[in-house]
Amino acid sequence: MDFYKFLASRTDRMKASEVRELVKYSRRKDLISFGGGLPDPATLPSKEEIESAIEFISSLGSIAFQYSPTSGVPELKAELVKYCREKLDIKASEDEIIVVTGSQQALDITARILINQRDYVITELPTYIAAIQAFNLMRPNYLGVPMDDDGMKLECLEKSLKDLRERGLKPKFLYTIPTCQNPAGLSMSMDRRRHLLEIASKYDFIVIEDDPYGRLIFKQTDLKRLKSLDEEGRVIYISTFSKIYAPGVRIGWVVADKSIINFYELAKQFIDLCSSSINQYIVLHALQSNLIDKRIPLIVQKYKKKCELMYNLLKEMMPEDSRWSNPVGGMFIFGWLNEKINTKRMLVDVIERYGVAYVPGASFFVDGTGWNTMRLNFSFPTEEQIVLGVERLSKAIKEEEKNIR
Amino acid sequence: MDFYKFLASRTDRMKASEVRELVKYSRRKDLISFGGGLPDPATLPSKEEIESAIEFISSLGSIAFQYSPTSGVPELKAELVKYCREKLDIKASEDEIIVVTGSQQALDITARILINQRDYVITELPTYIAAIQAFNLMRPNYLGVPMDDDGMKLECLEKSLKDLRERGLKPKFLYTIPTCQNPAGLSMSMDRRRHLLEIASKYDFIVIEDDPYGRLIFKQTDLKRLKSLDEEGRVIYISTFSKIYAPGVRIGWVVADKSIINFYELAKQFIDLCSSSINQYIVLHALQSNLIDKRIPLIVQKYKKKCELMYNLLKEMMPEDSRWSNPVGGMFIFGWLNEKINTKRMLVDVIERYGVAYVPGASFFVDGTGWNTMRLNFSFPTEEQIVLGVERLSKAIKEEEKNIR
Repeated sequence: MDFYKFLASRTDRMKASEVRELVKYSRRKDLISFGGGLPDPATLPSKEEIESAIEFISSLGSIAFQYSPTSGVPELKAELVKYCREKLDIKASEDEIIVVTGSQQALDITARILINQRDYVITELPTYIAAIQAFNLMRPNYLGVPMDDDGMKLECLEKSLKDLRERGLKPKFLYTIPTCQNPAGLSMSMDRRRHLLEIASKYDFIVIEDDPYGRLIFKQTDLKRLKSLDEEGRVIYISTFSKIYAPGVRIGWVVADKSIINFYELAKQFIDLCSSSINQYIVLHALQSNLIDKRIPLIVQKYKKKCELMYNLLKEMMPEDSRWSNPVGGMFIFGWLNEKINTKRMLVDVIERYGVAYVPGASFFVDGTGWNTMRLNFSFPTEEQIVLGVERLSKAIKEEEKNIR
Repeated sequence: MDFYKFLASRTDRMKASEVRELVKYSRRKDLISFGGGLPDPATLPSKEEIESAIEFISSLGSIAFQYSPTSGVPELKAELVKYCREKLDIKASEDEIIVVTGSQQALDITARILINQRDYVITELPTYIAAIQAFNLMRPNYLGVPMDDDGMKLECLEKSLKDLRERGLKPKFLYTIPTCQNPAGLSMSMDRRRHLLEIASKYDFIVIEDDPYGRLIFKQTDLKRLKSLDEEGRVIYISTFSKIYAPGVRIGWVVADKSIINFYELAKQFIDLCSSSINQYIVLHALQSNLIDKRIPLIVQKYKKKCELMYNLLKEMMPEDSRWSNPVGGMFIFGWLNEKINTKRMLVDVIERYGVAYVPGASFFVDGTGWNTMRLNFSFPTEEQIVLGVERLSKAIKEEEKNIR
């Protein structure tokens, strides 16, 4: 059909997420998938918690089923002000907050209101694939900054910024997941956080702080949010209830200077009018009845155990020339393998012959590198699956190393 | 702050919706607003229906709180296949359907996958303001086609298409709300529907059929959906549960050729990953337990009464040189006033002095006309408010007519 042709021209902006494709694979009964990014089902609201939320919705009557203001249900915004202050050390008024339909919507809106074609966007190497895909809509240029165990290497960032400046350019914004980064499992040190804000001020760009995992910390740290250190209104803070309550509610929020939040609200009107009122009231109830804070220690305990199990198995079983991140929290461990290995090329074979799946790391790199890396999720699989899966994966990688020699 | 400057450059794509602004005004206690587009609160799910939905969610356990596939919860898609066949006379398989976060998201995705900058998009004059705003993201050119009591005037459409063809151009798609159009309250006759599809075939463009009100019909009609007449896979059908169940669930759906649905799915991945699982299960329950079909006659009865009340009052009280649409269903009546009247300019005065609000019609016209028109909503106000509001409005308009003479 002739009139479909033009559709094809839009594909280069939107690659099907390999993570989601893997979720489809995982319906194979024998397959162990480290590929997804789902919370442990046991950490989702319990039957009692669901019933309590539901009772609350019932008590509200029809208001929960009606449209709500684009920027969010006012009671939820008031509760978010409190939550930001008490739990995140972030001071914000109600007009500095907007409720969004999951943090993915915040990334989509960020692209739409901030990026003009060919603008420079700075990301970590690697970075969250769905952020790149959201940004791609507006066709920016990317600058990737490598990471070490303390996060983004700021001397590399400064070098890139100087190069840009020499060409008369400056970046539109820098996107970072400073705590328990997805996919790398690394966190930015406090020194670097302070230094990053100095650099942002010096070179005058916005910092997007994506913080889905900041409360899922299972080691002693001194990490503060960039937004809590921000004195210039330069940081746009994005978070979500997907990882600390339930992804199924699709509720996230953004904290930023009032003038920026206004633009998020304007854009959101034409994207989905408003986020689901029902889901906003479910989250409001969870916050008001302290469900979330009661639940976090249980989630943290579970993920700590799974993470340590996976990390120790990887250290024990994987080839010596591989390197694995040792996260302080979150849901992912990242691996750098022998440079001769291409994790994307071997994936289908590993799934079919070894019965284990992961996300090839290359898609997380905006500079075309990362072919020898992989992301492993430890939150969703059971402990038994982690043991069996790492065993299978180590066999697959050792076999691959033999073949490439 | 220097780095906010560029934000301003994005404003021309996004005008704050006047409809939403009016909702803010309506918090004034004495104000009667015909400005919104909200369902009558009494038509929203009852306490018993909410409790039954909630019991269903409880019984599902954690799956309703987890992520779901981007294209929709499979059980809901299966139910939508049945619903389309039985209630809408539309034959579609599961891979020809995608669940979206309200039909507004469908419009947003439509813009993103179909429009390239400067493409021609055809709309009715007037048309749904939030569709224009969604399409504006991709900066198309518009061609507006005037309407009469039988909908879009197809001789005008053909003239525009010939003009385009002579310039070597063709439109990307035509956007129509054929039944109970928002804002005009008019419906396209069956003859015109058939003729429109012939024209679409001859000039080879896609037809977007937006159908939020197609089941809210309170007069005898023979209207069939364009999609049910579509033999070439040329129609993209969009609908929503906002008007027949509850806006607060933010659930809509799209029916189109499989190859087009694939693009909607690709785009949706980077927009919000998936629609809320909870809300999809609430809608699934409403469909399975026949709540929606039991409720529709009640909604129709209520809206019929309100519509007739408002229409008869308008005929009785408004100046003779004004014209009002007489809808077969839906939620809106549209008015064309004396050409010397500017409904936008007089709005603030009408709100402040007369205590009644409407939507100035100009924003619904893509060609800069319509300054003397207004949209009135009859679904949300009570019957008492309709009586008092039309009285206030007629005084205001008569006063304005006096002043402009």
